[in-house]
Amino acid sequence: MRPALTLGVLGLTPAATLDFLQRLEANTPAALERDHIRVLADINPKLADPDAANAGFLLAEAAGALAGAGADVLAIIDDAAHAHTELIERASGLAVVDMIDAAADAARMADARRVGVLAPRGAIRLYREYIAAHAMGMVSLEGERAQAFAAALQALRDGDLGRERRAEMRAFAEELIAGGAEVLIAGAVELPLVLDSAGLHVPLITPAEELARRCVAVCMGLEPAPSPTL
Amino acid sequence: MRPALTLGVLGLTPAATLDFLQRLEANTPAALERDHIRVLADINPKLADPDAANAGFLLAEAAGALAGAGADVLAIIDDAAHAHTELIERASGLAVVDMIDAAADAARMADARRVGVLAPRGAIRLYREYIAAHAMGMVSLEGERAQAFAAALQALRDGDLGRERRAEMRAFAEELIAGGAEVLIAGAVELPLVLDSAGLHVPLITPAEELARRCVAVCMGLEPAPSPTL
Repeated sequence: MRPALTLGVLGLTPAATLDFLQRLEANTPAALERDHIRVLADINPKLADPDAANAGFLLAEAAGALAGAGADVLAIIDDAAHAHTELIERASGLAVVDMIDAAADAARMADARRVGVLAPRGAIRLYREYIAAHAMGMVSLEGERAQAFAAALQALRDGDLGRERRAEMRAFAEELIAGGAEVLIAGAVELPLVLDSAGLHVPLITPAEELARRCVAVCMGLEPAPSPTL
Repeated sequence: MRPALTLGVLGLTPAATLDFLQRLEANTPAALERDHIRVLADINPKLADPDAANAGFLLAEAAGALAGAGADVLAIIDDAAHAHTELIERASGLAVVDMIDAAADAARMADARRVGVLAPRGAIRLYREYIAAHAMGMVSLEGERAQAFAAALQALRDGDLGRERRAEMRAFAEELIAGGAEVLIAGAVELPLVLDSAGLHVPLITPAEELARRCVAVCMGLEPAPSPTL
């Protein structure tokens, strides 16, 4: 077995980062606490707008600091922030364990031909590219419905996890299923807080869960580590 | 209001560190995700034996790396590791927001004259010193009972959180109350996982909770930051 790698974690919101760290721990096949992998996490709400003009540079800078502190590979706990993966890898020298790829791969493993994705606009672009690369089609919200979803997501980020928000997100999911989606990807880290698979008639993929599994496999040497863009 | 400080976190076990990070988030008076404080956490199970010969140097090295990555003050999520506070502060230049002091202070605020402490031997020494400094007396397990507690704690650390473990910890707590303790300090980060105040007839102080409150106050500029030993 290869020596364990230290996982760097770029967290943009505390709630989503804690959710990911719990999934990471739950997926670690370690009988003893001391066998768990080492995690260096930067939970930085100031990075929370991945569409901001300088977001890529801020993320790259934070990734570089994690590399300096001892991280070997990197997880980014935000779908849309993966748009900056290449810049982050070049600047930090760390390979990103890719959440978008992990989710698209899970959809392929579920034998889906059409994948529904609930995600903000920046992440939709990424998912379209990765899903096409896995030879599947994609269903997403368009026009006014995409705008309504963006507004609902912002409310979630501002802490509104109430019942109406749940009903609204459920309705968006049903729309994609009606549009032909055979699996759904919850493509924003806040979505699993209000949307679960109970009552949906298709599998629901949680990218943070797929990412956690892949990070455990990579850091424990059960899967080869990805190579960074240089 | 002063600018927000970045909190460095030295976590020795994943479970206790996640518990602390949740308490930190729950105690943050932030309406919006982006108003939360920035946290740089090193969750490193390899540091999990604070009594090891080189533990202080390893902790100091990890603290230095967090300072390099941008931490302004430091929290250590382990009672016994506070024995190395001075070395950690000198090496990293970071002031430690002191968990032992936060817990002793909470006991004083509860008007206790005698404080019961359930903790491993290294931490007992620290609590004795801090509690004396706050002009209170201390009740702790002695001899064979202290050894039995140490064995139970090791089982907890190895993941045994079962019903028998709970009953055993409850019995240790009742012993200290019978010995005159007017408040109890759960002086090992794993204890809150199996011991709660329901049914105890004295207040139960959880050092991680007191530490989380103090860290939020310091990082948000509501309380002055401590000065490191130089």
